[in-house]
Amino acid sequence: MILSDRNLDLDQPEILDGALSAFLEFGIRRTSMGEVAKRSKLSPATLYRRFAQKSDIIRAVAIREARRFIDEVDARIDPGASAEEQVVEGFVAFTQGVRRNKLLTRLLVTEPEFTLPLLTTEAGPFLALGRDYLAGVTRRLQAEGKLGAYEPEPVAEILARLALSLVLTPDGVIPVDDVEKARAFARDHITALVRLA
Amino acid sequence: MILSDRNLDLDQPEILDGALSAFLEFGIRRTSMGEVAKRSKLSPATLYRRFAQKSDIIRAVAIREARRFIDEVDARIDPGASAEEQVVEGFVAFTQGVRRNKLLTRLLVTEPEFTLPLLTTEAGPFLALGRDYLAGVTRRLQAEGKLGAYEPEPVAEILARLALSLVLTPDGVIPVDDVEKARAFARDHITALVRLA
Repeated sequence: MILSDRNLDLDQPEILDGALSAFLEFGIRRTSMGEVAKRSKLSPATLYRRFAQKSDIIRAVAIREARRFIDEVDARIDPGASAEEQVVEGFVAFTQGVRRNKLLTRLLVTEPEFTLPLLTTEAGPFLALGRDYLAGVTRRLQAEGKLGAYEPEPVAEILARLALSLVLTPDGVIPVDDVEKARAFARDHITALVRLA
Repeated sequence: MILSDRNLDLDQPEILDGALSAFLEFGIRRTSMGEVAKRSKLSPATLYRRFAQKSDIIRAVAIREARRFIDEVDARIDPGASAEEQVVEGFVAFTQGVRRNKLLTRLLVTEPEFTLPLLTTEAGPFLALGRDYLAGVTRRLQAEGKLGAYEPEPVAEILARLALSLVLTPDGVIPVDDVEKARAFARDHITALVRLA
């Protein structure tokens, strides 16, 4: 799915802030366009000119939250550390971020009709965000001679898909609740995928 | 989520056959318990004794289909081939199987309220099926000296999650439509994950 420019226009923090606060208070289902307009201090006509329908706002809010989440993970990585340490700490920061993000976990169960399609059949743009971020990190590590030469995108996409899968289905043998176990998992297995083992 | 024994009782092919044929003809939403009973040649009372609700039947049908899918992939792997060839051909068989399975792809979009929770927030049993199968293959290859020693389950689960992710979101840079490209992707990247590169 291609997001239109309008949907991707994130320079409208007042609308996205208003929508997010309404989603948190009322839930997505019970939030009307009128409520978003009120919280954004815009007329409904102006809101509709920017977002034709609620699903466009939901998607834009979700994309912004995904970007924020990636920024939070990135802030926990020390670019001066060894490649292995950056990979391991990045994975740990991701799992801790998911654990903290109780809202997302709750919305997957309470409002699946909005959240599940966005993160599955329509998740291309979310995977692309994660892939682009991880491919950038890979390229940086390769340029610094800390990682061998290989095409970054496919490996970055495997990692982005693993991350999204752990958000959607925490249930399994990959540790997401215990920091030390997550660290050991990343050290043992993610390193192999990125050719560090 | 733990499946109760009753839900996992797959020795009732007549019910699962009847339900599957009704799902294919009418869709899941419009299939009633009465229709399943009729097609299974059982009284509604008997059907309800075995499956308390439609969602239990849906889950049992889906688990059986997942097992069939794994068996189909497994049948395409030559256990006498090199480990790399088995990994690559297994991945190719998986992607071709997904492409052929238009029904599943269609149901994700037309009946998301039934299919998406099953394959996301409730997908633990499906991931476990894939993980157990792949861990078994790994153990066999390790016992034959074709793969080095490492704990099979975590790596098997990464692969199972990647597979499920490609079913839910084909959109991305990992090739699922082109056999030769899928083969090259598996040779370049899946081999690293299973410590063959």
